[in-house]
Amino acid sequence: MDRDDPWSVTDRDLHDRLAALRDADATAAVATVVDVEGSAYRRPGAKLVAPGDDDALGAITAGCLEGPVASLAADARESGTAAVETFDLMDGDEWGLGLGCNGVIDVLVEPLDDSFDPLLAALDDGESAAVLTAIASDDPDVPLGARTVVTADGEDAGDDRSGLPDGALADLRDAAAEARESGTSGVVTVERAAGDLRVFVDGVEPTPDLVLFGSQNDVHPVARVGADAGFRVTVASARGARADTDQFPNAHRVVGTHPTEIGDALDRPSRAHVVLMSHNLVDDQLALEHLLTETDVPYVGLMGPRERFEELREALADDGVTLTPDQLDRVSTPVGLDLGDGSPTGIALSIVSEALAVANDAEGGRLRDQSGPIHPRTDPTP
Amino acid sequence: MDRDDPWSVTDRDLHDRLAALRDADATAAVATVVDVEGSAYRRPGAKLVAPGDDDALGAITAGCLEGPVASLAADARESGTAAVETFDLMDGDEWGLGLGCNGVIDVLVEPLDDSFDPLLAALDDGESAAVLTAIASDDPDVPLGARTVVTADGEDAGDDRSGLPDGALADLRDAAAEARESGTSGVVTVERAAGDLRVFVDGVEPTPDLVLFGSQNDVHPVARVGADAGFRVTVASARGARADTDQFPNAHRVVGTHPTEIGDALDRPSRAHVVLMSHNLVDDQLALEHLLTETDVPYVGLMGPRERFEELREALADDGVTLTPDQLDRVSTPVGLDLGDGSPTGIALSIVSEALAVANDAEGGRLRDQSGPIHPRTDPTP
Repeated sequence: MDRDDPWSVTDRDLHDRLAALRDADATAAVATVVDVEGSAYRRPGAKLVAPGDDDALGAITAGCLEGPVASLAADARESGTAAVETFDLMDGDEWGLGLGCNGVIDVLVEPLDDSFDPLLAALDDGESAAVLTAIASDDPDVPLGARTVVTADGEDAGDDRSGLPDGALADLRDAAAEARESGTSGVVTVERAAGDLRVFVDGVEPTPDLVLFGSQNDVHPVARVGADAGFRVTVASARGARADTDQFPNAHRVVGTHPTEIGDALDRPSRAHVVLMSHNLVDDQLALEHLLTETDVPYVGLMGPRERFEELREALADDGVTLTPDQLDRVSTPVGLDLGDGSPTGIALSIVSEALAVANDAEGGRLRDQSGPIHPRTDPTP
Repeated sequence: MDRDDPWSVTDRDLHDRLAALRDADATAAVATVVDVEGSAYRRPGAKLVAPGDDDALGAITAGCLEGPVASLAADARESGTAAVETFDLMDGDEWGLGLGCNGVIDVLVEPLDDSFDPLLAALDDGESAAVLTAIASDDPDVPLGARTVVTADGEDAGDDRSGLPDGALADLRDAAAEARESGTSGVVTVERAAGDLRVFVDGVEPTPDLVLFGSQNDVHPVARVGADAGFRVTVASARGARADTDQFPNAHRVVGTHPTEIGDALDRPSRAHVVLMSHNLVDDQLALEHLLTETDVPYVGLMGPRERFEELREALADDGVTLTPDQLDRVSTPVGLDLGDGSPTGIALSIVSEALAVANDAEGGRLRDQSGPIHPRTDPTP
């Protein structure tokens, strides 16, 4: 299976590449979808990284603009300044029918400079951030590309660019908080005395964690599919004997743990999705009780049929532990989406798809059976 | 990403390996789960192939029995006879707690001989089959391993083994037809004058097809995830220019086609899952109309938002084509399960998960929100 496709790279790998390029003080450009109209393949916030000396990484459309954006990226690398380009793919002549694209797409193309550092530091700490960037300005004092990054630590503009003016920032705080919370992105217009300012508010979340408690063969396909889907995958092995990255080449981390200490193996429990798949009732029970009562892990998937969970709850009750409705709501058992497929990879797809849906506040189920837009998250645009 | 995991191989690859071993007249054994009690990881029909001179391929448990079965497989290769072994993993001492297994599992271990050929021929023709095998017999005239394969072409026993007696076959026809139809497997007991006969009725379906109509970058991750999930993947490119397997290394076939001729690119339309992702409204419309009105393809996924499909239906109506409720029921748009993830791989997971659910008559929602058993298909056991 060929995974060597820089276009379909995960956000995890994209963020890692941005950090590596900054560490190396390398010259690169970043293209970001900031606004779309019509049926665009990717949403605002989608990014492409174009290093000067290597292939571009990431997708901003289904393949229509990656070519045209390359020359804009070269301009940004050379000039060190940001630009916004509008691509109208609706009229069908230049980019339309032949390339199979439609919609109107605004793309911010900018140099990778120290204005990215507060974002990358936040992601490295497991925190989300909102990146506020001027994409159109009637105010001569606010250049296109002016940027302030809002993180848990406060606001930071970096040295390489202007920050946004304080008055505008005050008007943007709610949108920034919402974007940071929800991980969504959109354009906000701020009315100022000197003229309107259009600001792209980009909510960026750290890579979600998928933690697999077990060490049997069935951990492998879940680790593989989970890593492919963009999770950072940790295998937590109860028995220690197999706590070895050689055994789980698709995991980013392999740790030996005791079921009642699995929380210690989580850097950021509130963003972790844990699947209990030890195939051992006692170990799963100990880990479940620990995760529900001593951590704020939002998703605990439990392998096995409904009856197994009932057995486990009875054992907990015998120990005097009654799970609250809030705790039960964090448990997903039988784990996974209903794909009806009992093969190892089918089970892995079922589990990873559910964890991904939960990470994105989605429900699973067929989109055709739902009403409303496909992208259910709240847009921070007022 | 490491996909070199012979344990989590797909049924597609397992069937291909069985056919290759038979073609080479190689010595091999096959282990099949025939009955389970308790919370077993795999269902009846799960198989493992153990060639004499290579690693075993396939999974019959989460990893508990693959070791012990190896010596039974060696016995079967040497003796040329079938055996059924019951593994009681409930009491926890020998295989239990330490290895994290439970349940009682009956495994048929047998030599790969010409009794597999009618099944492999059926699968090669895109047809399902029911393999009927005696797994316990009070009748001295019916040895364990006696087998008759029921296919679209009739009943065939091969030369290397006894077939099942005609009287027993008469009693098994309904169960065989049901297993062939549903792809499920289970044990049926036939009462005979000479004593009871326990027969494993194994419904085996050919690899389902995933056909991707398009040639943009977003086809790649869908082809990759689809192949990983066990589909046979065909990329059907409308424009021909990119109809090249080098361009789509994860596809099993790449064909150039016109949207109104896409049906010709399908070997077996009734088992095909087609996703229209040309990003071109006219091409998608032509392909949709063709597939719904001139083929019996059961699943046509259409990329894009609901509004795009409405636009397409209006264009069809302008051409005098009104889709019937039955035809509309075959359309899935917006395509995919609700995973809330707009990344290329997230979209691919959403699409492939839905196609897999539809292939398995499942609904794609969270299993925890459903009642009833996880494996929803009808068991042929009366």
